[in-house]
Amino acid sequence: MLIVGELINSSRKAIAAAIETKDKLYLQELAKNQADAGANVIDVNCGTNFGTEAAMMTWLVDTVQEVVDVPLCIDSPSPEVLEAGLSRCKGRALVNSISAEKQRWAEVLPLLTKYKAAVIALCMDDSGMPKSVADRLRVAEKLVPELVAAGVPEEDIYLDPLIKPLAVDVAHGPEALESTRCLREKYPRVHVISGLSNISYGLPQRRLINRAFAVMCMAMGMDAFILDPLDRQLMSLLIAANALAGRDEFCLEYIAAERSGKLFV
Amino acid sequence: MLIVGELINSSRKAIAAAIETKDKLYLQELAKNQADAGANVIDVNCGTNFGTEAAMMTWLVDTVQEVVDVPLCIDSPSPEVLEAGLSRCKGRALVNSISAEKQRWAEVLPLLTKYKAAVIALCMDDSGMPKSVADRLRVAEKLVPELVAAGVPEEDIYLDPLIKPLAVDVAHGPEALESTRCLREKYPRVHVISGLSNISYGLPQRRLINRAFAVMCMAMGMDAFILDPLDRQLMSLLIAANALAGRDEFCLEYIAAERSGKLFV
Repeated sequence: MLIVGELINSSRKAIAAAIETKDKLYLQELAKNQADAGANVIDVNCGTNFGTEAAMMTWLVDTVQEVVDVPLCIDSPSPEVLEAGLSRCKGRALVNSISAEKQRWAEVLPLLTKYKAAVIALCMDDSGMPKSVADRLRVAEKLVPELVAAGVPEEDIYLDPLIKPLAVDVAHGPEALESTRCLREKYPRVHVISGLSNISYGLPQRRLINRAFAVMCMAMGMDAFILDPLDRQLMSLLIAANALAGRDEFCLEYIAAERSGKLFV
Repeated sequence: MLIVGELINSSRKAIAAAIETKDKLYLQELAKNQADAGANVIDVNCGTNFGTEAAMMTWLVDTVQEVVDVPLCIDSPSPEVLEAGLSRCKGRALVNSISAEKQRWAEVLPLLTKYKAAVIALCMDDSGMPKSVADRLRVAEKLVPELVAAGVPEEDIYLDPLIKPLAVDVAHGPEALESTRCLREKYPRVHVISGLSNISYGLPQRRLINRAFAVMCMAMGMDAFILDPLDRQLMSLLIAANALAGRDEFCLEYIAAERSGKLFV
């Protein structure tokens, strides 16, 4: 199970302000807290800093790496910013993201091979957001073999089925779950990843929807999540779900989490 | 989604004592609290009262029916006790349980048709507890058509895949999930039900495992649960999971639960 801590993202007001004022301590505290809470990867995003984004990303990567050893997830719509971040990473990184859109593919693929980075691959192409399970499978059938052909091993590919809000159509729930199951069945060595916030958009008590959704996705084979690792109930449920999915031999991780007081019931 | 409240069961010490001393108010309070918390059915079990069980069941059914209107789940290993309970039920009841074991089948089937009761059908036969997904499917292939042939409609059948502890073998998790998915795929009009306590037997923080397991089973198509409805987090997660499974049109039940303060985040 891979947990990508999502909190250092400039779409959040407090983060935008901290990046603006170069509030290193605040951002470092947040990076440490996420790693302590169980994030295996820390996402860094400063996408709202148009123009200065590449310099900001360089500073942000340096800032976070001063205090945590976990790999970073370099998150930007701009290939220049991705490269600015990747070039500073001490270890291997996760790129957020590539897709089958022609321009994005052409811009991001060279970075993956140059920096030997793992990658989040969005199941979309130039025809837009996927509208069905079949759409996602069709795009994955292009993405996976072409990434592998370019030298990205299957184990470094994290397919993102792209989740749409339940509030818009309740069919988006089963569609996301079934997409996960089919992607995983077709590519057992490739990972399936998702952020949790889209599914609950527009509904009350979003954390509750996010928690239930993460656990349901885990049942379907999803093994990587972009989330708020400071939500202790969410993290506890995922540790339990990981064991229930048969991926925690002798429940050792679950029992260790309990002994170290990390399970919140 | 069907929630069977499990708390009135004499294997619990407080219940055994309340039945022994005919503490009507305590049992009635527990029945009301479960119904208020969202139980659609109240299980009644006095299986530890050997010899006097039939008389106890009669009294228990009368006691509970005085205060709640929801149907009862009459739960006993003894067919005489099942009949004692069924004969007192004001409305339709759920029988817990029948199986493909020859003796059990012969004893319980007549009660189902006589009282037009719904039934929990355990996926086991005289060869013992199921050891695989295939075992469960094989037994279900016998149970479902034979129950239907006897006049029990598919909608009144609740298949129980029989869950074994995760602590014994982590493969029991995926086995339970895959069994649920296969049973539901094969019999879309038949329900799949499970108790939650077996899966977590022997592990710490059992409620956490139970909650994650219920939500994962929901993703696989399970639509009925025997559980403690007073676990508000469990109930809240299931209301969210029911919406995520696409079974709550426009998320109306979820939103109503939120408005009435029933969601515990």
